[in-house]
Amino acid sequence: MSLRNTLDFLLYDWLQVQQLSERSRYADHGRETFDAVLDTCERIAADKFAPFNRLVDTQEPHFDGEKVVLPQATYDARQAYADSGMLSAAQDYALGGMQLPFVVESAANTFFAKASISIGSNMLTTGNANLLMAHGTPLQQQVFAHNEFNGRFTGTMCLSEPQAGSSLSDVATRAVPDGADFEADPLGARYRLRGNKMWISSGDHELSENIVHLVLAKVPDASGKLVPGVKGISLFIVPKKLVDSQGQLTGERNDVALAGLNHKLGWRGTTNTLLNFGEGQYPVRGSAGAIGYLVGQVGDGLRCMFHMMNEARIAIGMAATMLGQAGYEASLEYAKNRPQGRPLGAGGKDAAAPQVAIFGHADVRRMLLAQKTYCEGALALNLLAARLVDEQHTGGEGSAAEAKLLLEVLTPIAKSWPSEWCLEANSLAIQIHGGYGYTRDFPVEQYWRDNRLNMIHEGTHGIQANDLLGRKVRMQDGAGLKLLTQRIEATAAQAQQQPELAGLAQQLQAAWQVVLSTTEQAWQWGDANRTLANAVPYMQGFGHVVLAWIWLDVASAVVASSGAALDAKAQGRLACAQFFFRYELPKIGAWLQVVQTGDTTCVDLIDEGF
Amino acid sequence: MSLRNTLDFLLYDWLQVQQLSERSRYADHGRETFDAVLDTCERIAADKFAPFNRLVDTQEPHFDGEKVVLPQATYDARQAYADSGMLSAAQDYALGGMQLPFVVESAANTFFAKASISIGSNMLTTGNANLLMAHGTPLQQQVFAHNEFNGRFTGTMCLSEPQAGSSLSDVATRAVPDGADFEADPLGARYRLRGNKMWISSGDHELSENIVHLVLAKVPDASGKLVPGVKGISLFIVPKKLVDSQGQLTGERNDVALAGLNHKLGWRGTTNTLLNFGEGQYPVRGSAGAIGYLVGQVGDGLRCMFHMMNEARIAIGMAATMLGQAGYEASLEYAKNRPQGRPLGAGGKDAAAPQVAIFGHADVRRMLLAQKTYCEGALALNLLAARLVDEQHTGGEGSAAEAKLLLEVLTPIAKSWPSEWCLEANSLAIQIHGGYGYTRDFPVEQYWRDNRLNMIHEGTHGIQANDLLGRKVRMQDGAGLKLLTQRIEATAAQAQQQPELAGLAQQLQAAWQVVLSTTEQAWQWGDANRTLANAVPYMQGFGHVVLAWIWLDVASAVVASSGAALDAKAQGRLACAQFFFRYELPKIGAWLQVVQTGDTTCVDLIDEGF
Repeated sequence: MSLRNTLDFLLYDWLQVQQLSERSRYADHGRETFDAVLDTCERIAADKFAPFNRLVDTQEPHFDGEKVVLPQATYDARQAYADSGMLSAAQDYALGGMQLPFVVESAANTFFAKASISIGSNMLTTGNANLLMAHGTPLQQQVFAHNEFNGRFTGTMCLSEPQAGSSLSDVATRAVPDGADFEADPLGARYRLRGNKMWISSGDHELSENIVHLVLAKVPDASGKLVPGVKGISLFIVPKKLVDSQGQLTGERNDVALAGLNHKLGWRGTTNTLLNFGEGQYPVRGSAGAIGYLVGQVGDGLRCMFHMMNEARIAIGMAATMLGQAGYEASLEYAKNRPQGRPLGAGGKDAAAPQVAIFGHADVRRMLLAQKTYCEGALALNLLAARLVDEQHTGGEGSAAEAKLLLEVLTPIAKSWPSEWCLEANSLAIQIHGGYGYTRDFPVEQYWRDNRLNMIHEGTHGIQANDLLGRKVRMQDGAGLKLLTQRIEATAAQAQQQPELAGLAQQLQAAWQVVLSTTEQAWQWGDANRTLANAVPYMQGFGHVVLAWIWLDVASAVVASSGAALDAKAQGRLACAQFFFRYELPKIGAWLQVVQTGDTTCVDLIDEGF
Repeated sequence: MSLRNTLDFLLYDWLQVQQLSERSRYADHGRETFDAVLDTCERIAADKFAPFNRLVDTQEPHFDGEKVVLPQATYDARQAYADSGMLSAAQDYALGGMQLPFVVESAANTFFAKASISIGSNMLTTGNANLLMAHGTPLQQQVFAHNEFNGRFTGTMCLSEPQAGSSLSDVATRAVPDGADFEADPLGARYRLRGNKMWISSGDHELSENIVHLVLAKVPDASGKLVPGVKGISLFIVPKKLVDSQGQLTGERNDVALAGLNHKLGWRGTTNTLLNFGEGQYPVRGSAGAIGYLVGQVGDGLRCMFHMMNEARIAIGMAATMLGQAGYEASLEYAKNRPQGRPLGAGGKDAAAPQVAIFGHADVRRMLLAQKTYCEGALALNLLAARLVDEQHTGGEGSAAEAKLLLEVLTPIAKSWPSEWCLEANSLAIQIHGGYGYTRDFPVEQYWRDNRLNMIHEGTHGIQANDLLGRKVRMQDGAGLKLLTQRIEATAAQAQQQPELAGLAQQLQAAWQVVLSTTEQAWQWGDANRTLANAVPYMQGFGHVVLAWIWLDVASAVVASSGAALDAKAQGRLACAQFFFRYELPKIGAWLQVVQTGDTTCVDLIDEGF
């Protein structure tokens, strides 16, 4: 199918991931084993996820007074995913894992994201366990992480609070040592937590034996005060049900209580919760507070949590991309089968002629090609980012360091760009369907609703933009930006050898120079507030040039891997590259201009003027 | 309130509508009576519409087997609207009307649109009755239109069919003469109709005594065939329940049957239906088919229907605008009251300082000012269009002809631009709310869903774009475009006398020259397919320059009507003009470039390449 064909090209012809088998960790792998994983995931997604995507939208999670009720399809989908081994796909063989590269794991997960983004929330469980593998004690890994990989437990991330969304320095959940012997617990230093956590995905359900909450909280100082800022934040494992050091449930419910389910615009298959920690609803072991086990050091919680941030942000970018792709495929199918109107002939329209499929109308083709360009470009970017994660973990020393640096710069784009443009793709998919697209009889309205979340969670657009302009392009004296410049120049140099792409290469180089000079100009005011006032337009312009680079690099691979005659799919990919350079890249001027001038229109207006 | 303040400025300071009282039709009117209407509508909208906007979203219309069930609030809102006299606001005193200018009627209706776009569907009833006042016989006016104006009956427009959405030439509903005496019926030549009509808003309900359907159908020729194309279309009055020549119900149900309710993404307070005409569910007077009365001449149906099109399209533009405005007001309120984060100080952030309201953050202000600029600009454009309708109807001969011509060119923009950009405003309103905006506990997600319809109904974006580039800018040797050029030049000339606006005036002139040259270049290929392949980007570029003109003209009025010191609201309006010229107008290059080059990337790609 369309997605699989694209994945095959991007993985094997463009990123050459089969070469990873030359590395010892992946020595057993090659295109055959990778393909087998892709085949399995594509099949499970088609059988257990896609047919129930509308069902989980209409049968929202609800609380029956004792527990959260979810449709049977959600249980079946989760079980099938756990049985596939994908929860531990990247783990060591010794842990029952497949030692699969992250890029292949990411590619395989696209099928699930496309089939039903909200029925599963496996990314959180895997991410939670990965964090513990990096920062937990051996026993924490064994008791919690291993049981997440094998499917017994699921995991969450508990960062936000009702009064502290993006502003984590204002976390008010308190953690105090649990008794004099608090440091002697084999599961880790034991604390009692009290506080409220908001927006917790998969925060309560009966899908698994237990739920492993990873909770940010602050340990009060000697005077009982919380340390202001993010430096005071620590990280705790807070299981819904207490376990012994063998990972068996002790039969004790921890004091973690569902305070409410959030009723959302979309993404309704996943519970999203407000949780109360230690408010006394389930008193445990005779004193107040939910029991939690410290991960890492006191005050080091945010650094630990950020361990999983790059991968989580790539996963969100991929989620946005696959919602876009789902809409593209649905609207392409609709366009091929919906007769309506007639082409213009030399003498106008012949009203007596039969209607044609709307696929024949230029404006519909424009909306289809735009979707294809947004979604396949975003997919390529996210696969590249995932490939960089592998390089960071298994590449040679210099190569790993470069990958890490490049990833820092690209992650805000890998997360934000698909969230914005694949949402636009979903709007175009609705438009192609006309009135039918506005009804719930067709899937595209749900994709659009589901996708709207992606500009908000895992760091809003504004947060990503501040991260990019405020930190990433400046870190280490702009080392990340210089490295990206090298990569862009390398792509341009290669494309300049390909006659059909030489013009695009020059456009890319010119556009990148504008980004570089804009970055310089942005910081000329000596006033971070003025600079960051236009961080989002900066990110939009930066992102569009990154995508132009991605498309040129992909196009270059198309030309290099094709013979004299391009097949239809190769023509499609080249058309996307052309579309991007002709219809999209020229947009950067409007975004970057306000950064260059340090425009202050929005901050200058007095409050009463709004 | 924010909206009322804006309306007052636009109506009285900018459009000077109080001067209309110099015309005999409006001689009894003046700012006092206009204000009284605005006051009344603002109050009714706040009391009977706004409190129930979420209710009508969650309690969707349903069919209980006999009738369509709607919430009581919908009945109450309709009754309050009918009691206000707004249904006949523009009609003669003799008909019980207020002889209100259309621009004031439109302004007054904004309050209802902002409060709850879907609870009412009065625009259709008024539009239906207006059409009959223009094309119906005196008795048709008396029996049908007058009873719509007084609130007894409601009205619909039945154009689309399941197989013919945008393509009206494919209408397949048949109308055949009803007996030998068919021309003798006092209500108009009587026909029997058979066919299916799709997307009929307010197509079935119990809100009124009767429903007056205006139905497009084709009268077969002597051989029984339907005439292909739009020339074969005729227009019929098909009441749900038959009436006598006094307008009293005869007790006979006409054969118009609800075949289904459409379940929509938004706009859920309004029933949207598939109707069967003459399929035998309610056999009437012993023969087959629904009884309908011809309006105007056979074959002249589409021209009659288009009578109400300009006003309907302005109303849709206004609906989109008011949904945007509702989101702006909600997100402004939220931003003022939501503490989160801290401003950057000279030494970075002080984590110990109290949080500030997010209204203090530059990126939030950018998203607020963008919304304000989109929505108030769209409001100004639509009010101007409404004012042109008044000029067309009551202006002097030359002035009326100019107004008609200008309206032809501006209507596609008045409809399409708010549909696109006030939807974007709604997305920004969600973004400002963060995770809360994604929940159904806040109103902004509903505004976004409701607004998505406006790019689809009353002629899609693609239809508007073809109308603009294919017809409106070329009609009468480009007379409309020349007239718009004069108006733009006049605005620029005035602004050039105002030092703070002279720079914007030059930018506007330059941008408009690009539109003019692009229009020339667009048609250089001698191939309408190639030209119209980029009709939507053309309309986007054209629309943005029109909005720049509107904002400059508004800004010029701000400066002209302010003293040496600008008050806060005046500062706000000038900031919007600046925002538009700095952040938005530069976007036109990307859209217009592909029109200039006649880009064929999308049409050239072979089918299999998608």
